[in-house]
Formats: sequence, C-alpha cells, structure tokens
Amino acid sequence: MEITLDNMEDFARGAAFLGTGGGGDPYIGRLLAQNAIKEFGAPKVISADDLDDDTAVFTAAMLGSPPVLMEKGCCGDDIDLAIRNLEKHLGRKAEAIMPIEIGGVNSTLPIMAAARLGLPIVDADGMGRAFPEIQMVTFSVYGCSATPIVVTDEHLNSVTIEADTPERAEGLVRATAIQMGLSVMLSAYPLLGKQVKDYAVHGTLSLALGIGTAIREGRSTGNPVDELIRYLKTTPYYNHAKVLFDGKVTDLRRETTKGFAVGHCQLEAMDGSGRQMEVLFQNEHLVARENGVIKAIVPDLICMVDRETAEPVPVEHLRYGQRLKIIGTSAAPIMRTPEALEVFGPRKFGLDEDFTPIENL
Amino acid sequence: MEITLDNMEDFARGAAFLGTGGGGDPYIGRLLAQNAIKEFGAPKVISADDLDDDTAVFTAAMLGSPPVLMEKGCCGDDIDLAIRNLEKHLGRKAEAIMPIEIGGVNSTLPIMAAARLGLPIVDADGMGRAFPEIQMVTFSVYGCSATPIVVTDEHLNSVTIEADTPERAEGLVRATAIQMGLSVMLSAYPLLGKQVKDYAVHGTLSLALGIGTAIREGRSTGNPVDELIRYLKTTPYYNHAKVLFDGKVTDLRRETTKGFAVGHCQLEAMDGSGRQMEVLFQNEHLVARENGVIKAIVPDLICMVDRETAEPVPVEHLRYGQRLKIIGTSAAPIMRTPEALEVFGPRKFGLDEDFTPIENL
Repeated sequence: MEITLDNMEDFARGAAFLGTGGGGDPYIGRLLAQNAIKEFGAPKVISADDLDDDTAVFTAAMLGSPPVLMEKGCCGDDIDLAIRNLEKHLGRKAEAIMPIEIGGVNSTLPIMAAARLGLPIVDADGMGRAFPEIQMVTFSVYGCSATPIVVTDEHLNSVTIEADTPERAEGLVRATAIQMGLSVMLSAYPLLGKQVKDYAVHGTLSLALGIGTAIREGRSTGNPVDELIRYLKTTPYYNHAKVLFDGKVTDLRRETTKGFAVGHCQLEAMDGSGRQMEVLFQNEHLVARENGVIKAIVPDLICMVDRETAEPVPVEHLRYGQRLKIIGTSAAPIMRTPEALEVFGPRKFGLDEDFTPIENL
Repeated sequence: MEITLDNMEDFARGAAFLGTGGGGDPYIGRLLAQNAIKEFGAPKVISADDLDDDTAVFTAAMLGSPPVLMEKGCCGDDIDLAIRNLEKHLGRKAEAIMPIEIGGVNSTLPIMAAARLGLPIVDADGMGRAFPEIQMVTFSVYGCSATPIVVTDEHLNSVTIEADTPERAEGLVRATAIQMGLSVMLSAYPLLGKQVKDYAVHGTLSLALGIGTAIREGRSTGNPVDELIRYLKTTPYYNHAKVLFDGKVTDLRRETTKGFAVGHCQLEAMDGSGRQMEVLFQNEHLVARENGVIKAIVPDLICMVDRETAEPVPVEHLRYGQRLKIIGTSAAPIMRTPEALEVFGPRKFGLDEDFTPIENL
C-alpha cells in the first residue's frame, strides 16, 4: 500500500466503515492527513512483518467524544508534542508510527503524525476496528503496558501518565480529556517491533483502503453495498460479512455522558414487514438486535451505511428518518479469543450477553 | 527552629490552627512526620533568606478531601516518587523541600519528605495558611509556574502535568486526584531559591510551632485561648488577632462535592444573647458573619478552636452542639495585595463581597 493525496478519500471512507459508528466523520480526518501530506510529504507505509524486533513504534491518536473532535480538529503541534514528550519520558526516539485503532479519524491522524515527524507508518493497528476505551486493544490483552501515555491539547498542555493497570490508565486519560475539553491527542502503548508483529492486527491500513475503494467502485456500477460485501468476503478478518438490516431510523437517543457518546438507534424495516432493529452504542456500535434477537455483537463489527451510496454513517450523523443498511462482519481472530473477550467482550460494555460469532447468528 | 520528635505535637497543633478548618486532622500528620524522623532522622530547617538564588526547592503536599486524607494516609514511597519523577522531568535534583501551604497535614508532610530524602526543609510556605486550590499561592500571584506538577498515589501511579495556566493545572490535578481516590501526593511549583526569597511567606514553620507551643503552655495556666491570642499579637503576620465569637454549633451542612469539602456551620452565642454566627467553608473557612455582618473574610484566617482547650477543630471534626471559639487573624501582607486578591480573594470563592482587612471590621 502507498499513501497518496488521491487515495486518502477512499482510505478515510474505509476507515469510517471500520469505525463501526465511532471515530468521527472521515471528512476532517481526510483533510488533516491530506494537508500534512501536502506540507511534509506522504509517509512510507511499512508492513508489521518487516519491523526489527527492537524498533520503537509509537502510536498516535485522538481521544474524546467524536462530535467534539469534529468541531475542535487538531493543530498538529499537539500531536507532535505528545510524541516528543513520550520520547523524552522514555529516553528513546520513535522510529515508526502506528494507529492504535483503524476506525475513523484515528486512522488518518497517525498518517498526519508520521508525515509531520518524517517517520514511516506501520500497516497494522491494535484492533482492526474502533473501540471507546484505552485498554480495549490487543496489546492490553497480551500484556503490553498502556503507559506511559502522553495526553496533549491544542493549548499544548501535556499530561504524562504512568499507571499500574490499563483500566486505571483509561480512568486517568478520560478525566484528563474531560478537563481538556473532551478532544485530546495522545500517544499510548509505546511498543517494540516484536510486540507489533506478535499482537497487532496486521494489514488494516490496506484493508481500510480496500473497503473505501470497493464502495467508490460499487457506486459506478450502481451497487455499492453489494460491492462492499463482496470485497469484505475476500478479506482475512471481515470475511463473515452480511447485511443485517435494511431500514429507516424511527428512534434515536444519543447523549454525551462521562466522556462518551452513548445511546441507541431504532430502525424499522423498509420492506413493510414491521420488523425492528435496535442498535446500542458507546461511541461505537455494541450490539444489533432484531425484534430482541441478537444479530451481531462486539467485538464483531456493526456498521451503518447509507442504503443507496454505502457511505458509512457515524453515530453523530444519525438522523430520524434516515434510510440505512446495517452491515455486520467478523472481527479479526486475535480479537475473539477468550482473553480478548475478557477485555472488550459484551460484558465489558455492561451488556448481559456472551459473545457469539456473527457466522453462528 | 529545630525539628524534633518531641516538638512535632506542638508543631502539628499550630499547623492545624493555620489550616483554618482545612488541611486535615493534625494527628495523622504528626504521626507521619514522627515516624519519618525516627526512621530517617530529623531534617535540617533552613531560613529562606539563607538559600542561594539558584537552589532547586521542591514542594511536597497531599491534595484531596481532608476526610479521605485522614483515612488513606500515605505510604512514603508515593511522596518520594512525586519528587523523583519531577527531578527526572526537570533534569535537576531537588536541593531543599518546602511546604506549599503551612496548614494542616501539608505542614508535616514536607517534613516527612525532607527526612526521607535527606534534604533540608525551608522555613517558609506559599500562603501562611491553607487554601483549597493549586493556584491559590503567592508563587502563582507573582508569576512562578505551577507546573510541571507530578501527582502520585499509593499504587505508585504517577501523572506529570504541564499546563499553560495555574487554573488549568488545578483542573487537571483535581480530575487526577478524583480518579486516584481523592487523596494524592504531589510536587508542584518547582522553585529557585531567589523565587522563594522573594515570594514565599517566610518563617511559617517557626510560627506554627510557636502557635502550638502557646496553646500547650496556655493549658497549664488555664487560659489557652487567651495565651494563643497573646502569642498571635506578637507575630509578624497574624498580629491582628481576636476572638470573633464564642458559641455552640446549632447547624452544620457539609458535603464532599467536586473534590472539596464544602458547606457551612452555624453557631449560637454562649452568652444567651441569641447572636448567631455563620461560617462558610470550601475545605478551609471562607467567611464568618455575625447576624449577617462580616467579621472576617479570606484571605484573612478564620479558625475554630475548642473553647476550653483551644484545640483547633478542622471542618471534618465539627459536630452539632460543640462549644467553640472562633478566632480571626490577619493574613501575611503579601497575601493581601490587589494581585493576590485577584487569585484568592473572596470573589474567587464565589462570594459576593470584597476583601476587608480584619482590623477594619
């Protein structure tokens, strides 16, 4: 995969799909990456497998409530400061940048960071989707420390956190983010190349680009949702893919509370059958139920797209009356292990259900 | 002044008086200092005037809700970690320790820190009393940066904060403290000797010891409150001292909210005249009104003591029916300047009144 000015629109659209409702509108994420590429040149994309075991890989991300992220944006100096302060704290220079999550803005933000800092970007992330909390990442599942974490804001305030558990780190980061206005830059989980090779979800930048490209190409043939499903079935992780529901939004409750966008969205089938689907979310979609029966549940991916254009619709853009198709896909196998479900399975979101793979539902 | 195992009881009692209701019960503060002195030896007390201009002076303090402080205590490793992480962040070793506030536990905690680290302690602080928020200190008034601040807890979690204003630092520290359980150790306002000489309130460790000694000696003659007032009148800052009220507690509202102990205490005069006094507090006492007329107001000191023994009574030990004398004293002149009142005058606590010196009331 190569990052170019021209493929950023496809890439950002694919990343918005993998955001599963969270991670923010791809529009601003694309602009940020494109502007950085124009000013600093495109970063080189490297495969996780090509990393030396000892390479210092730093992550770069925004954290907060997606609607706030969309309003505040990011100035660039803030993300540089997060990386630089983490380098200072660790006494070691970053040698590559990696997304911690591929979903939404957090896929393009690391491209911006890598471009600004003149570093390569690793074609991998820590979940192959988006998740709302810091500890919800494979690195945490498999024992890599979330901290030190550096959190920065647009005033160049900086907070460096060292915590004994990723859950405590999450609490401290979230409290800091709320103080800073609920949209911050951070660098967490400083990793070595070996850890990235062993625990990252590989190839997800390429997959985001593939998804976005499939949607665009499908539009020219008139069947973008079909084309998207066809492409997903060819991927190594998202291959159990299907349209879960085709309906219009009849009810929507969405509030920003404790630092998250939480709520639910109800849809009624377009076929006049009266079937209902309810989707719950905490930044990202958590579970989709048709007339009370689960059709897909975290960590599998639940994505809402426009039923005509297949444009991914993030939670903050949901509106009453919208016509949407709800697509479910399998998550990467490393995300579905018993240890992984201990960290980001349904019960970790307060749901009273166990995980069942989408292919068995 | 010399710090000894034996004078810690007097010292802690005097510091509790200067805590003006906040800063926590002196009992635990005294135990912490005494234990550290037993294990590591007493730190040398040095005068602010004897500091070299370039000496690195670090502060050490607990922050949180006094009742929580009293339950959790502190393990020592946490305060060491705050100092060590600040040294690491600044790339410079601490050469002396100083209290940021002389009130309550925060007068004895720096003695513990100095003893553990083998450093001298400076006979001075940043307010000559206690205050609830990080920016409420002379150093902030006169342009010294509150940050970097390192905040630690008993699990040895650590958060390093760099902020553009002391108010922002306060917000970040408070949010961190709430996450950490509302009782944390910190080192803030790293200073140079010149700044301490110019902006600290000098000699306040000695004054705390003097106050505690006067109360003890007064008990042997049977007039501890009189003896306390007599002593205060001889001091350079607290010389406008008087008993504002002699009454019993008839109403008490006290809650822990947003990280503070806030509320009010109402008293009725012991002389049967029916006169009422109301004292408002936010950790520390803010204003004392007799039948609605102000008798003392921040930054001047309002202290409640047992009417018989002159034992200072912190806010968390107030009880319905208690017999108390309320003592008001002037604050240090450096605390009463127009710039200082911009930072910790009455309006900064949400009061709708200007500061009037106690000697004019």
